[in-house]
Amino acid sequence: MRYPDPLLKLIHVLRRLPGVGHKSAERFAFHLLTWNEEQLGEFSSVVGCIKTELRHCESCGCLMGGVAGCAFCSASGRDHSQMCVLAFPRDVFALEETQEYNGLYHVLGGLLSPLERKGPERLSLAKLKERLTAFKVKEVIIALDATLEGDATSLFLKQELASCPARISRLAFGLPMGSSFEYVDGGTLARSFVGRSQF
Amino acid sequence: MRYPDPLLKLIHVLRRLPGVGHKSAERFAFHLLTWNEEQLGEFSSVVGCIKTELRHCESCGCLMGGVAGCAFCSASGRDHSQMCVLAFPRDVFALEETQEYNGLYHVLGGLLSPLERKGPERLSLAKLKERLTAFKVKEVIIALDATLEGDATSLFLKQELASCPARISRLAFGLPMGSSFEYVDGGTLARSFVGRSQF
Repeated sequence: MRYPDPLLKLIHVLRRLPGVGHKSAERFAFHLLTWNEEQLGEFSSVVGCIKTELRHCESCGCLMGGVAGCAFCSASGRDHSQMCVLAFPRDVFALEETQEYNGLYHVLGGLLSPLERKGPERLSLAKLKERLTAFKVKEVIIALDATLEGDATSLFLKQELASCPARISRLAFGLPMGSSFEYVDGGTLARSFVGRSQF
Repeated sequence: MRYPDPLLKLIHVLRRLPGVGHKSAERFAFHLLTWNEEQLGEFSSVVGCIKTELRHCESCGCLMGGVAGCAFCSASGRDHSQMCVLAFPRDVFALEETQEYNGLYHVLGGLLSPLERKGPERLSLAKLKERLTAFKVKEVIIALDATLEGDATSLFLKQELASCPARISRLAFGLPMGSSFEYVDGGTLARSFVGRSQF
């Protein structure tokens, strides 16, 4: 005897969440069945309205609450001479948490990936150039993934911004904190060796 | 800079799913933001309507699709002389998958738990007795958890059904399949020793 159709459908949509397989989706589904109408209604409406409530800032591409406006663009006291370029809105929050940076942000909206047919037309490039000029930015900090796609996008950005007067830098590569030599892969070790600094 | 409010709210409701901590909820939330309106709408409506679409059969307590009716109660060819008593609707599907049983089911709707103040009034007992009589059931199979709550509920059921002419049995306890002796706990080993059968 298989599950009733509405339950199958619930399991089906829950499986679309990242890292959720059939077993976890079943577990979520049976757990949802123990919620009352009010809890289910709240969950459902929060998910259903998230695109309306949460938008991307048209200028920097960061996430912003629908009513509040962009917290980064409207912030006073941020250093307009630095512009950090990232791939996704979530990366902005990760960098903010380090408390190492107080400049401007620009979210590209993705990375170049020829295999997945993601070309430069998907990146927020024109806006980036426009903002670099408008703010007279002195340093562009490329903060993209240390992956093939991140490398390709960084090189592409370097070429695109060649005529721009700003200095271009990229995040350092090396040993992740807390890592022991034994478990670090060769690629990381090589980059960390080449990028060594005076101690 | 903290997340915008709508994002915080989304993370908050996602954390209510079982086994989902802050990090997983964040991951789910950012993944949901990549879905289009249609996908979000479907997800949200499936969750929101699940209580309407999926109900418990008033007779046996199993889950049933809103339109379809109870697949267990309406099934022809099931053995009416056996009644298997379980705690939760999901347990029915787990037992069905074993393909070892073709009798009737009765879902209690929970287990006794004095610590959580869950008494017998929450269990579907009157209905169980009524069905046992109506179907002239010959064997009641108690299929409850091998936990303190499961034990307590099983003993309670045994007393409650003492006047019932049906034979009462309970699932076997012992080594789980694929387990090696080394990793089996003492309690399981003791139950498995006591319950040994001729080989």
